[in-house]
Amino acid sequence: MLLLEKALVHFREELDELQARLLEMAGLVESAIHQSVAALVQRDEESAKEVLWKEALINQKDIEIDEFATRLLALYQPMARDMRFLTAVIKINGDLERMGDLAVNITERALSLMRDTPVKPLIDIPKMAGLAETMVRSSLDALVKRDEALARSVLMSDDEVDRLRDAVYKELVAFMQEESTTIPRAVDLMFIAHNLERVADHATNIAEDVLFLIKGIDVRHHAEVREQATLTRP
Amino acid sequence: MLLLEKALVHFREELDELQARLLEMAGLVESAIHQSVAALVQRDEESAKEVLWKEALINQKDIEIDEFATRLLALYQPMARDMRFLTAVIKINGDLERMGDLAVNITERALSLMRDTPVKPLIDIPKMAGLAETMVRSSLDALVKRDEALARSVLMSDDEVDRLRDAVYKELVAFMQEESTTIPRAVDLMFIAHNLERVADHATNIAEDVLFLIKGIDVRHHAEVREQATLTRP
Repeated sequence: MLLLEKALVHFREELDELQARLLEMAGLVESAIHQSVAALVQRDEESAKEVLWKEALINQKDIEIDEFATRLLALYQPMARDMRFLTAVIKINGDLERMGDLAVNITERALSLMRDTPVKPLIDIPKMAGLAETMVRSSLDALVKRDEALARSVLMSDDEVDRLRDAVYKELVAFMQEESTTIPRAVDLMFIAHNLERVADHATNIAEDVLFLIKGIDVRHHAEVREQATLTRP
Repeated sequence: MLLLEKALVHFREELDELQARLLEMAGLVESAIHQSVAALVQRDEESAKEVLWKEALINQKDIEIDEFATRLLALYQPMARDMRFLTAVIKINGDLERMGDLAVNITERALSLMRDTPVKPLIDIPKMAGLAETMVRSSLDALVKRDEALARSVLMSDDEVDRLRDAVYKELVAFMQEESTTIPRAVDLMFIAHNLERVADHATNIAEDVLFLIKGIDVRHHAEVREQATLTRP
């Protein structure tokens, strides 16, 4: 094998490894979201501890993936398509990391809610959580399969999440107005719904990045500049 | 001038232009945040309209800056330091765009609050807004001046914003418990405080990116890989 071919194969392997790490991070994030809502619904402290532990892992992976992607950009200086993938990974990684933070926010509210009797049976919040988790999974699947339709389906689900959140808010305001002792707990639930809506927003961001990656941008008109620019490299 | 020098000068000019556009975007974002709180405090519909208009401009600039930075990455395939700058710009741009969304969220709540009598005189919320705006400005100044101390000062301010938000929440819960008719308005104010806290979080993200940019990462140990990798370019 020529040196050139070897380097190219190695670069492909590195890109695969990067994607694998991003998927691993996404798996952790998904499970953190799931367990944060389990902590809320089942009033389960063990699930809460799991979320805090996973968020620490997520933060580590965030730094590792960021450094990995930046290193690949620096070392291989890839052309348009691979570079778009690398910049997409950096953005997606950032969105996933923030979802980890949101899972912790939910968990903190869940822990506070455990100390008191439930305000109401929880129906719409677990529904929101299920939708948000599916959106996270689908946005990453869309990345792996470069699947435009799947990415677009994530954008559609976001509206349903917003609709559920509005229903949750409305119901909680009614509870607070009827019985003022529920106010602190109802506020906690409102912020949990808000955090789930933000998880869905981040999944939407990822889906948008995937669409941008698939659609691409045109650098052909500047091909003559590239010819010059290559000369500037040391 | 040699062709190589010309291309290098042109690349420097492009980086300057990119930074100028990012600062322009940051100026728009700062002013959108300021006007969203003006709409709230002065119950001023004109300010609200200004925010919505500015957010449309911000969204345009977000796309332009993203494309510009990605194009520079693709065309010039810069080495470590310049590439770190370009990836930082892409991230900072994303944070600024989300601050624009938050200004709109604040504005929508402000418009809803205008229809009713004020719950309370607003003191801590304008204070939070002032701090958040300063954080945005300082984080961008830190980028321009590559000023580590200034970037660190932004991280410090974030704690003060969190403290103010806690005070706002506590006071509003007391209002709601005392007089249930204030609940919907108090919830609006809570979410406004929450949005300002998130603006501060995004400014903190920017400051962190600036610190990463200044501190840098070490790619020297992989110099031998780079030698091979350059062979893969078409």
